[in-house]
Amino acid sequence: MNRIELLALTGIPRIAPGDDLARLVWEAAQKDGIALADGVLVICQKVVSKAEGRLIELAGVVPSAEAQRLAAEDGKDPRHIEVVLRESARVVKRGHRVLICETRHGFVCANAGVDQSNASEDAGELVLLPEDPDGSARRLRAGIEAALGVRPAVVIADSFGRAWRLGQTDVAIGAAGIVPLDQWIGRPDGFGRDLRVTSIAVADGVAAAADLGRAKDSLEPAVLVRGLDRFVTADDGPGAAALRRPREDDLFR
Amino acid sequence: MNRIELLALTGIPRIAPGDDLARLVWEAAQKDGIALADGVLVICQKVVSKAEGRLIELAGVVPSAEAQRLAAEDGKDPRHIEVVLRESARVVKRGHRVLICETRHGFVCANAGVDQSNASEDAGELVLLPEDPDGSARRLRAGIEAALGVRPAVVIADSFGRAWRLGQTDVAIGAAGIVPLDQWIGRPDGFGRDLRVTSIAVADGVAAAADLGRAKDSLEPAVLVRGLDRFVTADDGPGAAALRRPREDDLFR
Repeated sequence: MNRIELLALTGIPRIAPGDDLARLVWEAAQKDGIALADGVLVICQKVVSKAEGRLIELAGVVPSAEAQRLAAEDGKDPRHIEVVLRESARVVKRGHRVLICETRHGFVCANAGVDQSNASEDAGELVLLPEDPDGSARRLRAGIEAALGVRPAVVIADSFGRAWRLGQTDVAIGAAGIVPLDQWIGRPDGFGRDLRVTSIAVADGVAAAADLGRAKDSLEPAVLVRGLDRFVTADDGPGAAALRRPREDDLFR
Repeated sequence: MNRIELLALTGIPRIAPGDDLARLVWEAAQKDGIALADGVLVICQKVVSKAEGRLIELAGVVPSAEAQRLAAEDGKDPRHIEVVLRESARVVKRGHRVLICETRHGFVCANAGVDQSNASEDAGELVLLPEDPDGSARRLRAGIEAALGVRPAVVIADSFGRAWRLGQTDVAIGAAGIVPLDQWIGRPDGFGRDLRVTSIAVADGVAAAADLGRAKDSLEPAVLVRGLDRFVTADDGPGAAALRRPREDDLFR
């Protein structure tokens, strides 16, 4: 019987720039008695960004005229808008006081993934997405392997809104060692054929699943998913970049 | 420690119109030794639709002039397009030989969720979404309770494509007994605050997770998810209707 199990790591401390995230993760796993081998380690973007120092002080940001105009119209902090614009390749849509942006990586999400730091003492600080989230995932995987000799797949997850549906789900913005997209084109299913399903966004499904494994108000930024061996690969693979729809194939950009 | 477990039910036979799906599910669970109490039972839309007789023979469909025009331009079967149009409140977008439709329920998805039957002997048959998927979920829940005296939550899942991202993920088109949307507005998170995350689409996350629990080419249309007790409710609740973004709040319709 196919059995999948999700276990939240409990002992990861608050992360600061320069922290060795791989070490903090494997130490927490060891303390919890969770073996990382063969699993998929899903970790929140925010702690990855913090460890990588992807933080910016609002106080030092000088907003452009464009940022000032948008902020005034939407009743927002122009310095925050300035950082969002800097992180964006372009604004896809604007409305309901939100900028839906295409980030420099090619993700489409609210405010280019720029978030207020959730440490209350750092209220004046913004957290940016990692520069290269697939690279971040690869480094985390390599760091765990260097310490423990095992190579779990790694998924870096962030909460994105969706067109047409309410609420957010976690998606993979970075990945290493996991099949991100399971292709079904031309493959018969159990009954013969299925016209509509062409590929399954496995890494996004794993990210969404992991989000159920922890309470958002807990300090559990990492979840191990077991039982997905068929999607875990020895090589790091194409990463979450494979999940970004090219602009020219996108009907909603 | 928070632990979530997913178990695919293995013994559900091929479904035909009029089948008692609740009975087939709880019999399969009993045979597998899977206790349904307190879990979330995730079941594929296709088997629900089949049990409810939401099937239509292509041979009997007379395509409208509009269906003929669209089908000719896209190289498709005009009878198939006709059924898609009948199931749609409107076509949101057309391109890449796909119609992105708003269904009569208010879902936005490719081809209004109309799928070719995947039983090879029924190649001339289309499967439609259930008339009232939340009602289907409630009936399935009630049927299980009547037989076993336990009330697992029920989620009816279908694979939807997304704007901006490649691949499909399963989402909840029907639900009973689960909090579909976990509201975070005004609730502090573990560190203080989080501007971007306002609500988590729990039922969609559960659907996406369950899809990992079975191979698409296996005959496993139902997966039990355990460990989500905090989202399982005694009453059936608002269902997956709560996840449909109202048209007037949607920037991409």
